[in-house]
Amino acid sequence: MASDPTQHRPPRRHLANAIRALSMDAVQRANSGHPGMPMGMADIAEVLYNNVLRHNPGNPGWWDRDRFVVSNGHGSMLLYSTLHLSGYDLSIDDLKNFRQLHSPTAGHPEHGEAPGVETTTGPLGQGLANAVGMALAEKLLAARFNRDGMDLVDHHTWVFTGDGCLMEGVSHEVCSLAGTWKLGKLVVFYDDNGISIDGETDGWFTDDTPARFRAYGWQVIEAVDGHDADAIGRAIDEARGDDQRPTLICCKTTIGFGSPNKQGTAATHGAPLGDEEIAAAREALDWPHAPFEIPDDVRAAWDARERGRALEDEWNRLWERYRQAHPDAAAEFERRMRGELPEDFDAEAERIVEAMQADDGKVATRKASGKALDAFGPLLPELLGGSADLTGSNNTDWSGSVDILDRPGDGNYIYYGVREFGMTAIASGLHLHGGFIPYTGTFLVFSDYARNAVRMSALIPTGAIHVYTHDSIGLGEDGPTHQPVEHVASLRMIPGLEVWRPCDKAETAVAWREALLRRDRPTALVLTRQGLEHQPRTAEQLAAVATGGYVLRDTDATPDVVLIATGSEVGISVEAAAALAADGIAARVVSMPLPERFLAQAADVRDRVLPADVPRIAVEAGVSAYWRGVVGDRGRVVGIDTFGASAPAGDLFRHFDLTADRIVREVRDLLGR
Amino acid sequence: MASDPTQHRPPRRHLANAIRALSMDAVQRANSGHPGMPMGMADIAEVLYNNVLRHNPGNPGWWDRDRFVVSNGHGSMLLYSTLHLSGYDLSIDDLKNFRQLHSPTAGHPEHGEAPGVETTTGPLGQGLANAVGMALAEKLLAARFNRDGMDLVDHHTWVFTGDGCLMEGVSHEVCSLAGTWKLGKLVVFYDDNGISIDGETDGWFTDDTPARFRAYGWQVIEAVDGHDADAIGRAIDEARGDDQRPTLICCKTTIGFGSPNKQGTAATHGAPLGDEEIAAAREALDWPHAPFEIPDDVRAAWDARERGRALEDEWNRLWERYRQAHPDAAAEFERRMRGELPEDFDAEAERIVEAMQADDGKVATRKASGKALDAFGPLLPELLGGSADLTGSNNTDWSGSVDILDRPGDGNYIYYGVREFGMTAIASGLHLHGGFIPYTGTFLVFSDYARNAVRMSALIPTGAIHVYTHDSIGLGEDGPTHQPVEHVASLRMIPGLEVWRPCDKAETAVAWREALLRRDRPTALVLTRQGLEHQPRTAEQLAAVATGGYVLRDTDATPDVVLIATGSEVGISVEAAAALAADGIAARVVSMPLPERFLAQAADVRDRVLPADVPRIAVEAGVSAYWRGVVGDRGRVVGIDTFGASAPAGDLFRHFDLTADRIVREVRDLLGR
Repeated sequence: MASDPTQHRPPRRHLANAIRALSMDAVQRANSGHPGMPMGMADIAEVLYNNVLRHNPGNPGWWDRDRFVVSNGHGSMLLYSTLHLSGYDLSIDDLKNFRQLHSPTAGHPEHGEAPGVETTTGPLGQGLANAVGMALAEKLLAARFNRDGMDLVDHHTWVFTGDGCLMEGVSHEVCSLAGTWKLGKLVVFYDDNGISIDGETDGWFTDDTPARFRAYGWQVIEAVDGHDADAIGRAIDEARGDDQRPTLICCKTTIGFGSPNKQGTAATHGAPLGDEEIAAAREALDWPHAPFEIPDDVRAAWDARERGRALEDEWNRLWERYRQAHPDAAAEFERRMRGELPEDFDAEAERIVEAMQADDGKVATRKASGKALDAFGPLLPELLGGSADLTGSNNTDWSGSVDILDRPGDGNYIYYGVREFGMTAIASGLHLHGGFIPYTGTFLVFSDYARNAVRMSALIPTGAIHVYTHDSIGLGEDGPTHQPVEHVASLRMIPGLEVWRPCDKAETAVAWREALLRRDRPTALVLTRQGLEHQPRTAEQLAAVATGGYVLRDTDATPDVVLIATGSEVGISVEAAAALAADGIAARVVSMPLPERFLAQAADVRDRVLPADVPRIAVEAGVSAYWRGVVGDRGRVVGIDTFGASAPAGDLFRHFDLTADRIVREVRDLLGR
Repeated sequence: MASDPTQHRPPRRHLANAIRALSMDAVQRANSGHPGMPMGMADIAEVLYNNVLRHNPGNPGWWDRDRFVVSNGHGSMLLYSTLHLSGYDLSIDDLKNFRQLHSPTAGHPEHGEAPGVETTTGPLGQGLANAVGMALAEKLLAARFNRDGMDLVDHHTWVFTGDGCLMEGVSHEVCSLAGTWKLGKLVVFYDDNGISIDGETDGWFTDDTPARFRAYGWQVIEAVDGHDADAIGRAIDEARGDDQRPTLICCKTTIGFGSPNKQGTAATHGAPLGDEEIAAAREALDWPHAPFEIPDDVRAAWDARERGRALEDEWNRLWERYRQAHPDAAAEFERRMRGELPEDFDAEAERIVEAMQADDGKVATRKASGKALDAFGPLLPELLGGSADLTGSNNTDWSGSVDILDRPGDGNYIYYGVREFGMTAIASGLHLHGGFIPYTGTFLVFSDYARNAVRMSALIPTGAIHVYTHDSIGLGEDGPTHQPVEHVASLRMIPGLEVWRPCDKAETAVAWREALLRRDRPTALVLTRQGLEHQPRTAEQLAAVATGGYVLRDTDATPDVVLIATGSEVGISVEAAAALAADGIAARVVSMPLPERFLAQAADVRDRVLPADVPRIAVEAGVSAYWRGVVGDRGRVVGIDTFGASAPAGDLFRHFDLTADRIVREVRDLLGR
């Protein structure tokens, strides 16, 4: 496996010690980081990389590579070490610059920063969740594209995980699903070192983890010595032998293995070992080399470039045969793996938006979203939807939806069960694997449950589409536990996430189109439970929806006031404007379904919609803080700054005084007329 | 057990059918709600209430009552029915007004709305988590206060839970802890009906739930017929027989039991059955009575008022004996259960704040928080802290911290493990039970993991204190996954939550004092990892901290500009003001650790701090949207509207241009000087 097979191959422990040395030295140099995990899991990583992993350091984007996810992402130096040693474009200088500004070797692994980092990890449990998504993507693509004798898609997903990941609730959600989905090519190494930051875990983590995972339908390989390469190898063989059940390999390890005075304690977890202890560890590990110095024989033994090239070449030959035999499937596979939309997408989307504009009649935007899916769905076999047990309410299924468990090859719909966090993090994994455009569904209020995974979808970033219905007090009787008031505003705070709150069918169609076009950043679609009036638009207005904010109803005269509204409040603003017009007050109505996009435009463009000298009133059934800055010093906000209540929706809008009448009163008071 | 023992006692099924009838009729009348769970779990509820539950409908606040939590809160009509039938102050008219405005019978049970509702449920899994907190509170109070022969605290916590709760990740976190904590008096009834909203759960929930809970160290009683009162009774006896392990009673039930054409299907879950089906159910259940009509014999059999009074009288006699024998312990118990602070608290707090002001020197506010705990802790035996495996980083322990597992009677510190969501929801349960002031700790970025439990702490509401450290890019090398940028702003959006971001030791002490005084609403304390300069203050300024925003550094002249800052940005704003002064520009510095409190003041009070005609610049190491409204049309915000990066903190502040120099530049540009 070494580049030069005639060269002496160092003992496995010695190869693993290269990870240990690089990790402790890089953490020391940065004076910050986590040596404990890399030193503890080094032997496992060595076996995985040198015996098992099918990857090509020369092409980290090879579609059929094995995926390797370090869910305990604080152990980033393990990953950087293996990537460097096996031949990825990550230099020894990059390792020396661990945790420094502009270095690809960030404190926690960041997808897109260093080659070979499959996902961004650190927030515990979510790497595991991403990996479940990747393994599901592999299974579904294999079912769709593999043909007799031509297994175009055939790779494993390998995960490192620690106690922390397994304590987090999201691990329950996604490992349960992995069992249900029979992800036989998902293999998780559990770093069972009995230590977390606060010390020995027996004070707060007493689960029988093997029994827990068996309860999920997993194959569990218990009590593997995580420092015995042969034992690790046998466990991996056993894992690969079962193609129906995901496998948990429970590895007994010593955190900080090799640090003679600190190993086995929390002291190694998240702080440099110190020069003295590092010297002692060099001695204990019989690693006499200077910091960041890797002897040639070790480097040669790790170097996976040649093997990787051969593996990919072999696959490329398969790919050529496949293209010959199945040109249509090959074209679809290639397009999807490249993340490209179909060639005719723009034209078709235009047609869909126009049709939804032409289709008048009152409808809830969640239902409009279902109609949009019905229109876009047939164009996009890569669309892979789902809901956290609210399919009928979220309208996330459409006429072409096929349960992935019924017919995996055509499957494009996932029943996630009541697992918002897991669902959202799995969607990131589906995106990262490639081949799918994931969308998910739940009530807006339960975006809270998934909050950090939503954030991660923006940070990684992914092109996931988060469908959130029941977006305000308008959901009615379910009451304040189910009524988002702060959620639209608080989602808008996440950098890079676009949060659409459309007001009718046409805006919903545009929002879907924009979300689908945005393949590298996530989108949230915020939708009503209740029916909303259709808004007529000119072609120009329809085109302007995509700018995020535009004049929906104007006055002949210079406006006396501008009403800015989103979603369900656009209709009542239009109503208010009509009432005001009857009284001689000229109110312009601006629909602003995506304020951050609108506000990012040049000042003169914004001014044409919101003239600087005309007072503004913003109307949204949620907290007002966000809008204060938009309406400015003379402006007002009509919103709800308390929790909601349980009652029919109409009663609630009256109770919270969120009506056309109220807007009229505010305008009159503001203008003194 | 009936009020009049000579009266004929109807069969148990008939008593249970009263719940079924009230539930299906109330849902029908509201034309909204969830009949399936109440009809499915009615027989279990009947046994629990009529054979087991120690409560007093005449005094829902009796300290030693059993707690009963409906974690599958959509089954609220079950709870309202049992509360009504057993004699709580919840009338038949209240039931008729199910889900109507101003009615106590909200769509999901709301604590404080109807008597006997122990917590607000609906968001799945969290009622179960609250119950774990209640059971822990019981155990700790019993250990502290019970004396030989005088078990002042001795009650059970009973929970109803469905598939949904058990799919949610939070159920993993809290049930794991319940096992570790050996909460033997926690008994959970699992409504194993095989149905969730999307249909039969075998497509998305295939866990071996009994095995899963055994893996947590629970006693599991499997395959109980949830419609057989005797079997239920035997299971409860078995549950009570084990005082070391929490018990899961797995009840096989039929959702919507009694609805002949819909039972056993998702159709009964969340929609009215319809008049025709209700008529058929009346027939099937042999319940000929009109809607909301309860026959006298059924009413008498359910009536628990007399039994409840007797139970509480018995306890009151014990309480009298206890007060005689242990007056000091009794006084402490009474004070704590009333939720009152010690009499000398205000004076002591004043002293503490003054001492922290006097103690100059640079220190991180997370460390200042630890010092505050060291000062406040000895005053408050009810303070019950903890961290999600970041004790040393959050500085949530103090010199008087005792692990609850080491010495339960003195225990005041909880090692929650890596379980932010569970921790936060458990804290709500601790508050709701009474006797404790819970505080929790994690990194600010991981408030995301607990987001809905934080919201629930404000909605229930509780007086929980959320300690969030590492509050910005100032945490440095851990990078963007660990650097909150949107979190302060987004926590501020939660109605009723106070979000303090203090700038030094004194402000931290004030924030702690205010959080402790605020026994009925939650507080978040947002604290730095890095050291911050001490700010001198006059007594008047020190007193003004509690207003949320005050002038920290003023100029002799009328200010040319006001710099508004929070937390770590106060120091650089003071620095900038000094630099500007040297150039003849008069900059006032306003420290605004709690903007929402500041902004809620009268306009003239605000104007004294932020004069209307002086331009403003807000400085906060986070997203700018919140501050746009505060600085107004002429103002500017110096913030960070992207994710952070991995590097030493100093490098990051320079990289993101969040420095005194930047502020000076912005001021000069704004003023054109």
